[in-house]
Amino acid sequence: MRFFSDNAAAVCPEVMAAIAGANRLDTAYDGDALSQGLSAAFSELFGKEVAALWVGTGTAANSLALAELCPPHGAVICHKDAHINNDECGAPEFYTHGAKLLTVEGPGAKLTPESLTERLDLVPDGVHWMKPHAVSITNATEYGRVYTPEETAAIGALCRERGLGLHLDGARFANAVARLACSPADLTWRAGVDILSFGFVKNGGLSAEALVFFDPDRAAATHYRRKRAGHLLSKGRYLAAQIHAMLEGDLWLRNGGLANQAADRIAAAAGPERLVEPVEANELFLKVTAQEAAALRAQGFDFYDWAPGEVRLVTSWDSDPAHVDSLAAAIRAL
Amino acid sequence: MRFFSDNAAAVCPEVMAAIAGANRLDTAYDGDALSQGLSAAFSELFGKEVAALWVGTGTAANSLALAELCPPHGAVICHKDAHINNDECGAPEFYTHGAKLLTVEGPGAKLTPESLTERLDLVPDGVHWMKPHAVSITNATEYGRVYTPEETAAIGALCRERGLGLHLDGARFANAVARLACSPADLTWRAGVDILSFGFVKNGGLSAEALVFFDPDRAAATHYRRKRAGHLLSKGRYLAAQIHAMLEGDLWLRNGGLANQAADRIAAAAGPERLVEPVEANELFLKVTAQEAAALRAQGFDFYDWAPGEVRLVTSWDSDPAHVDSLAAAIRAL
Amino acid sequence: MRFFSDNAAAVCPEVMAAIAGANRLDTAYDGDALSQGLSAAFSELFGKEVAALWVGTGTAANSLALAELCPPHGAVICHKDAHINNDECGAPEFYTHGAKLLTVEGPGAKLTPESLTERLDLVPDGVHWMKPHAVSITNATEYGRVYTPEETAAIGALCRERGLGLHLDGARFANAVARLACSPADLTWRAGVDILSFGFVKNGGLSAEALVFFDPDRAAATHYRRKRAGHLLSKGRYLAAQIHAMLEGDLWLRNGGLANQAADRIAAAAGPERLVEPVEANELFLKVTAQEAAALRAQGFDFYDWAPGEVRLVTSWDSDPAHVDSLAAAIRAL
Amino acid sequence: MRFFSDNAAAVCPEVMAAIAGANRLDTAYDGDALSQGLSAAFSELFGKEVAALWVGTGTAANSLALAELCPPHGAVICHKDAHINNDECGAPEFYTHGAKLLTVEGPGAKLTPESLTERLDLVPDGVHWMKPHAVSITNATEYGRVYTPEETAAIGALCRERGLGLHLDGARFANAVARLACSPADLTWRAGVDILSFGFVKNGGLSAEALVFFDPDRAAATHYRRKRAGHLLSKGRYLAAQIHAMLEGDLWLRNGGLANQAADRIAAAAGPERLVEPVEANELFLKVTAQEAAALRAQGFDFYDWAPGEVRLVTSWDSDPAHVDSLAAAIRAL
Repeated sequence: MRFFSDNAAAVCPEVMAAIAGANRLDTAYDGDALSQGLSAAFSELFGKEVAALWVGTGTAANSLALAELCPPHGAVICHKDAHINNDECGAPEFYTHGAKLLTVEGPGAKLTPESLTERLDLVPDGVHWMKPHAVSITNATEYGRVYTPEETAAIGALCRERGLGLHLDGARFANAVARLACSPADLTWRAGVDILSFGFVKNGGLSAEALVFFDPDRAAATHYRRKRAGHLLSKGRYLAAQIHAMLEGDLWLRNGGLANQAADRIAAAAGPERLVEPVEANELFLKVTAQEAAALRAQGFDFYDWAPGEVRLVTSWDSDPAHVDSLAAAIRAL
Repeated sequence: MRFFSDNAAAVCPEVMAAIAGANRLDTAYDGDALSQGLSAAFSELFGKEVAALWVGTGTAANSLALAELCPPHGAVICHKDAHINNDECGAPEFYTHGAKLLTVEGPGAKLTPESLTERLDLVPDGVHWMKPHAVSITNATEYGRVYTPEETAAIGALCRERGLGLHLDGARFANAVARLACSPADLTWRAGVDILSFGFVKNGGLSAEALVFFDPDRAAATHYRRKRAGHLLSKGRYLAAQIHAMLEGDLWLRNGGLANQAADRIAAAAGPERLVEPVEANELFLKVTAQEAAALRAQGFDFYDWAPGEVRLVTSWDSDPAHVDSLAAAIRAL
Repeated sequence: MRFFSDNAAAVCPEVMAAIAGANRLDTAYDGDALSQGLSAAFSELFGKEVAALWVGTGTAANSLALAELCPPHGAVICHKDAHINNDECGAPEFYTHGAKLLTVEGPGAKLTPESLTERLDLVPDGVHWMKPHAVSITNATEYGRVYTPEETAAIGALCRERGLGLHLDGARFANAVARLACSPADLTWRAGVDILSFGFVKNGGLSAEALVFFDPDRAAATHYRRKRAGHLLSKGRYLAAQIHAMLEGDLWLRNGGLANQAADRIAAAAGPERLVEPVEANELFLKVTAQEAAALRAQGFDFYDWAPGEVRLVTSWDSDPAHVDSLAAAIRAL
Repeated sequence: MRFFSDNAAAVCPEVMAAIAGANRLDTAYDGDALSQGLSAAFSELFGKEVAALWVGTGTAANSLALAELCPPHGAVICHKDAHINNDECGAPEFYTHGAKLLTVEGPGAKLTPESLTERLDLVPDGVHWMKPHAVSITNATEYGRVYTPEETAAIGALCRERGLGLHLDGARFANAVARLACSPADLTWRAGVDILSFGFVKNGGLSAEALVFFDPDRAAATHYRRKRAGHLLSKGRYLAAQIHAMLEGDLWLRNGGLANQAADRIAAAAGPERLVEPVEANELFLKVTAQEAAALRAQGFDFYDWAPGEVRLVTSWDSDPAHVDSLAAAIRAL
């Protein structure tokens, strides 16, 4: 019974069917109709003309976005627990050719206008210091927290004021939108987001994320950078097909909601004392002793030791309701 | 009737079935059994212990190989018509952090010990010049020609003598082996090849190529570089599954042979006068006038204008025999 | 009697005096009055508001200029014998983060609108190919030839038409201006040059070249890039002082003329049959047999073997007139 | 009366004389006898065969050292207040092609085996995290503190144990050695240092630092990297001459001692309550109110506001004794 990572989940049937459905002779790279149709599909979703392209991984999507927003001699501000800072083996540094990530601390892996301002003000003017050019936030965050549209807009306003680009790592964007029941537009471009890494792989996709440029004119160089990074698959139609399947009938949102609900049921069983962070998406951070953790594992539950006395549990679109019930019962019984 | 590119071909059913078969909850990234089993599978194929890993595109595979063989201040020697020099938007320069491709001319996009020696001898000693660290050859070449084991071994011997690494871009390795009816070992490590980009996507795969390190100790850094380039897919098992399906019962070799045979039939119809290059793999370069090209297109054949008075036709594992017959007939009738 | 390279020449007394004159406590980096005064000094020289900064070497100057004009995924067109392509160990690739140099052939290491157009037209549209963003020419060229203002303007016009930046490597700019007796403005910004590497080291300086941006707004990022490359000396005033000394009373032009005249005298002695290239600056390429070369060396003349049957001789601002006379006589006597 | 930075000091007469003395025709780049003699000179100083080369700035020296010790996908551990992390505009990231600086906190900008171990242990195994390959310490530190030979050796031992290279930023190495009255060998290679950036510019030099490789075989690639970074001056003899002048008769050590003594006199005047850090080199960090700082400035003293209620004063080899006395008196009188 795996609650280890949503990365380990299966591919959802609609996506699998779409891959099979794309299996005909067609134009190579992203010249096919499915790939060419991504911008229109996302423009409809966001209620605004956008430019969108597929990318194979979230790491590549994030790094390409940062390379657009920040020159090699600039800096990107992010939370110290951000995926781009912690879990991508320096991909942002590779794609930006050496830009620096300046980190901020704060609860829930969330930035605030205050913490951001404080960090920005630490950077003196002058060529000895890498000047911040962009901010990157993650929604839902690495600790399963969400930014509301208002919180995002406050950061967006600060970015505009300071002349900074704003990137949103949306590896779990679906979970955030499902939780907030807001429009995708309110959580992105209306709040000042310039580029979104729209995640699908953790949410039922196989190998396709989308990069969404809310200023469509800003996407041009990224097509070159994607090719140059070896991310322009010659059979791109199978990636585009996955994304179209996820967008069709808002499957992405439904899947995100399923994962959230599974997390909620476990959270309810755990009770507020055990929760290190409020559960706002599909991740739970629980205080459990080493003995308790061992007891859960002995019952067949698989999860991640996060810190001393703390474990991380992640649900996904395909979390088996019976497993979720068993886990909830097991936690209650601790 | 598409003879445009083998990149545009469909995915073969065995590969599609393997993808579907991998669709269960599993460990993320390349921790799954399929990914972990690649080195063993390729070790068996090559009759030698190797280290192998999946990569999403041939461009990424080539560039990762070159980054292993050449430092940022070094040079790689290749043919001027090599894919790495011409068609990858500077991916080798990106992954190697600025190494230089020094090019050699010669028929069939093939290097020879002579042309290689001549180029090497043009580089003076000293820090003003980027010192060659590696050679990259393509087999089958960009002009549909093959290097025999003997030809490869002669280049390999020169590389050893000069202290150069040897990379083999095997985007169409299957076509080469099928044509030469030799062992994969004779065409690679026994001939001095250090790293092979083993292509599957042009040959019936969807999104998986393999990097094969004939010195298994040499693969370690590439795991970091792959992650850092955003090429460590979180659901890597679907890539590993494709490769295992291709290796199973030598499907890769069968598919390569099918494409070659289709090319042979068209070549036979075209006759030696029309052939710009001998047909040794699945690409044909034909002398046809603009009018003849237009006539073929009017009959529904799609292909690439290569040069004035010259077109390129590419067959693939799934070239429809009826289409091949029609094309052969149409060419005969020109 | 050294005719090996103008790089080996001494520092002229005015420059040495200026260095000594700068030796007082002052502000660090480029905050001192001398450094801050460079833009004004070059604005006066060029009859136009420019931004100028010191850089320690021509290689760094060239590379910083190219980094401003070309993104990592772009290409720069230059002559195959250009210093940036041949003699800088990949510095342009390092500073641009992997941009590609696309080379053109042609006599005298000179580009022409025709050769440039031909090369540009070889690059297809699309992300598979690195798109040209800039052109770099050298004046005087690596073969001691000059571009006239008209020739430069023709290239400049083509660059504008094609949307390309134009860089001028002026390691021997002084020799070119001295020969052409034209205004520096006519040979640069009036002809469409965007950035000039204005060389002083070969011409009597010690360790200071200037980067001149004819659009002053374009210099901002280069200040960061210079620092980041470790080229912002903490005692920059000693570099600025060298440049002011060279500009004072047009010392640079006088020195360039002295070197040219020395070359002219040797050229006259050699006669047209021996000259591989017309002598238009301070470099001579002479046809001499191995025996003749040995005979010259036996008389104490030091120079560079350029190609079989061909030697290179370089004069400088401090070429001893007696040595020049001796060499002229020795060549006549061959 | 400037106590702003030792970067702003003048060049000492012996160095100026050496520059003038090098002003004759000679071989270009580093082919001259002075440049070629550096390895021998430093081998003598360190009592061991080393390889040494000149570099124009400390930033370039540090970055070249780190590029040798750490691959692009690796990490370097340093103090968060290290010059390489704070003041070089990302030069380490540029030269290493994107390696990450992992920072450690602790008093006096000093690392300890404990803080280092703690940081190292935070990095999980696996390709998602940039693996530490090197440690960089600064002696004297950015806060004017010194590492003793024993402290250095403890860090060196940990580095060996963990397979890490050890770089020493010796921008103020002279001040450290002068203070500790130890042998340069004990503070470097005998303590496990692999590469030293030996600073001269803050200590009376004009534009020359030295990179010292205690394993001479390790210097080869740096010669290419230096050229490729545009740091191989064509008139390198003037840099080598500066270094020889500094080494001659231990001028470097005498100058370092002069700066230390000036700092000591001010420290004595300030008294322990005002000192934020013990004064162990040529930097003082004093607690003074804004009013007190203004009063000092009104008397003509120039210095840097470091933090609220804290100023930094730096002495140098040429600090005027009269100015030092005046400052000491003025501080006493506050």
